[in-house]
Amino acid sequence: MRMVDIIEKKKNGEKLTKEEIKFFITGMLNKSVPLYQVSALLMAIVFNGMTDDETALLTDVMLKSGDTVDLSSVKGYKFDKHSTGGVGDKVTLVLGPMVAACGMKLAKMSGRGLGHTGGTLDKLESIPGFQTRIPISQFKKQVADIGIAVVGQTGDLVPADKELYALRDVTGTVNSRALIASSIMSKKMAVGTDVILLDVKYGDGAFMKNVEDATELAKLMVSIGKKMGKNVRAEITGMDQPLGYAVGNILEVKEAIDCLHGKWPDDLKEVCFSSGSTLLLQGKVCKTEKDARELLQKKIDSGEAFEKFREMVIAQGGDVSYIDNPSKFPVSMYSQEIRSTTSGYVSRIEAKGIGIDAMKLGAGREKEEDIIDFAAGIVLNKKIGDKVQKGDVLATLYTERPHFDRIAKDIYSNFHISESKVEVKPIIEGQIK
Amino acid sequence: MRMVDIIEKKKNGEKLTKEEIKFFITGMLNKSVPLYQVSALLMAIVFNGMTDDETALLTDVMLKSGDTVDLSSVKGYKFDKHSTGGVGDKVTLVLGPMVAACGMKLAKMSGRGLGHTGGTLDKLESIPGFQTRIPISQFKKQVADIGIAVVGQTGDLVPADKELYALRDVTGTVNSRALIASSIMSKKMAVGTDVILLDVKYGDGAFMKNVEDATELAKLMVSIGKKMGKNVRAEITGMDQPLGYAVGNILEVKEAIDCLHGKWPDDLKEVCFSSGSTLLLQGKVCKTEKDARELLQKKIDSGEAFEKFREMVIAQGGDVSYIDNPSKFPVSMYSQEIRSTTSGYVSRIEAKGIGIDAMKLGAGREKEEDIIDFAAGIVLNKKIGDKVQKGDVLATLYTERPHFDRIAKDIYSNFHISESKVEVKPIIEGQIK
Repeated sequence: MRMVDIIEKKKNGEKLTKEEIKFFITGMLNKSVPLYQVSALLMAIVFNGMTDDETALLTDVMLKSGDTVDLSSVKGYKFDKHSTGGVGDKVTLVLGPMVAACGMKLAKMSGRGLGHTGGTLDKLESIPGFQTRIPISQFKKQVADIGIAVVGQTGDLVPADKELYALRDVTGTVNSRALIASSIMSKKMAVGTDVILLDVKYGDGAFMKNVEDATELAKLMVSIGKKMGKNVRAEITGMDQPLGYAVGNILEVKEAIDCLHGKWPDDLKEVCFSSGSTLLLQGKVCKTEKDARELLQKKIDSGEAFEKFREMVIAQGGDVSYIDNPSKFPVSMYSQEIRSTTSGYVSRIEAKGIGIDAMKLGAGREKEEDIIDFAAGIVLNKKIGDKVQKGDVLATLYTERPHFDRIAKDIYSNFHISESKVEVKPIIEGQIK
Repeated sequence: MRMVDIIEKKKNGEKLTKEEIKFFITGMLNKSVPLYQVSALLMAIVFNGMTDDETALLTDVMLKSGDTVDLSSVKGYKFDKHSTGGVGDKVTLVLGPMVAACGMKLAKMSGRGLGHTGGTLDKLESIPGFQTRIPISQFKKQVADIGIAVVGQTGDLVPADKELYALRDVTGTVNSRALIASSIMSKKMAVGTDVILLDVKYGDGAFMKNVEDATELAKLMVSIGKKMGKNVRAEITGMDQPLGYAVGNILEVKEAIDCLHGKWPDDLKEVCFSSGSTLLLQGKVCKTEKDARELLQKKIDSGEAFEKFREMVIAQGGDVSYIDNPSKFPVSMYSQEIRSTTSGYVSRIEAKGIGIDAMKLGAGREKEEDIIDFAAGIVLNKKIGDKVQKGDVLATLYTERPHFDRIAKDIYSNFHISESKVEVKPIIEGQIK
């Protein structure tokens, strides 16, 4: 078998066999296939795609390229929840404890933020002392004991994805449905949960720009999961504006704590209750969506969901006094309110633009090695549909970086205000079973 | 400037600027741009192409990546002739001396054979003593003195093409019109001849499989040449069967000598007279094609063309006694006649198949490092349109390799014989000015 023939085959729009997929993945890992051949194949895949079967084969080969986590010894319904990434997406911090409080067990390996999107690990690490580098044995024990653990990728899980992702990032080959789906699903499969819920976001701040692409990606991932015998569903959710009000690590943790105390932004609440009830149905904890939503509300009202979050923080070494008293969190040296120079209704808040502004304020990474300022970020005061009077505060920025004038202007330019009333689209666009 | 942005741009079908093209070519050569980014860009170019302007820019940047040969001190009309490669293509060996005998000067850097196609350098080196590694100063002197020199690429000419070509070869990115055109034209431009004639072949044995693709490639190359101020024309010629009768190095040199003595296969004669007269018109030696064809015939009849070939062999260290007495050339240990088991008319001779069979007999290289058996090859006895009786010899194979039974069968399978008469297509399909 020759790598050049595999590349030619894909370039000509043909389907690769399992042996061919294995050849290039194994060859990449043992360096017998040089990266310049891998990247040429990746670009051919970007143009010609892969069938669902091929993508499932690729997922399987990637999954088997390294260690896997065996959760079979952990009792109960283990679940995982994955978002394709957005701006202000703190869903895991709220949904995880809510569903765990209902008896299902969250076993999640999460990622860091890059560019305009944030990462759950960074948000959790903004809690002083919180550890995300945890050995697999301890991860399993924590899932068994308290029913919730969110950690970084440990062990040699899916090394093929690490190599491929690093290569895709610098070769313009990120935007392939097959490559995205196999990257996500191989990592989900490597952590052996019973139930997987995918949150596939679309819109300006998401990786998928429109609902059609997001739906196609969701269908593909659910299809891969099913072919591999998993209970997988996907929700398609909007990312046409940041989710909730807060963008930035500590700011988002504080917002998550508010939610767990029952103080919600509308859109974030709907995502948590929709995804949460889906998970409870997948895990057979409830029989109807109505029951599930009621149970979730009960766990918020009783404080059990908040308590579950506290347990996780404690288990992972975090200083829980910050959770109990969020005013302890450090506040940025500089802050500035962004005020509207016009009246009307907010029609759009460019999520990607806000994400990039937050990154520039220190809340995110431009390059992987950048260090995050946990306190930095943006808190929106208005969301789509809100009425705005001239002089109203639209958002407030927080940063340690003194020269933020241009960023402040840019934040303002990401708000679009129309004269007429604006209808708010539902945040949940659909579900793929 | 970031390479990933350049890749994304091309992936999205946009046009690259001169600065961007320069960035990736320079970066590739000084290793600041890794090959895995170059190959991803090449694959994006395969899918999205390049405009004529972009391709001319790429050609110019490649051309300027290394040394160039300045022929301005050599008096007279210097010409170059390039074939895109085929099976049995010994045109340079015949056409070169013919046109040089008319007063124009051939200054040609040529290549070696790979796979099913032969290379002019290999053919010349089958003449004992013939040197193709010649310093540029000597190359120029030989062009000035005797008006003909065919050498290997010397000096640091178009290093960008060497790197790119090696990479394209192993990354499935050979078949891009823009990449082929810029590769050929940068090398032609680097040898500063006044006149360039391109022989763009199409058909089963050629790189371009159909006349449309060949025409497009020819138009692109002529357009690049004109943008860069050169007198360039192209001929589109058929490669639906091997050119002439002989395939293999010594076998082709012998056939070339026969031609220079006026003993021609029809198709080879037509290519030499058509291309030869075009060159004489480009070089303003003649005013009409008729005059040009007559002059060429005169140079064959007078022996001046043959004498020009002898002069080149002598100048490049070859033993001219082989040219004067071709029976001196070694003959293969084994030979076998391939006979027809049916009667009819030859309708097709798969050129690529014959080329591969010749390679397997030892006449060509499967890999670059393979050593050629100069005496090996195939001589056709029948060509398209010829009447065949059962038992007639279709071809004869020559080899040093004892196990040639399967190859003999394969040669036979490349002959297609029909019951009804077959019309012979003209070998010259068209010309691009």
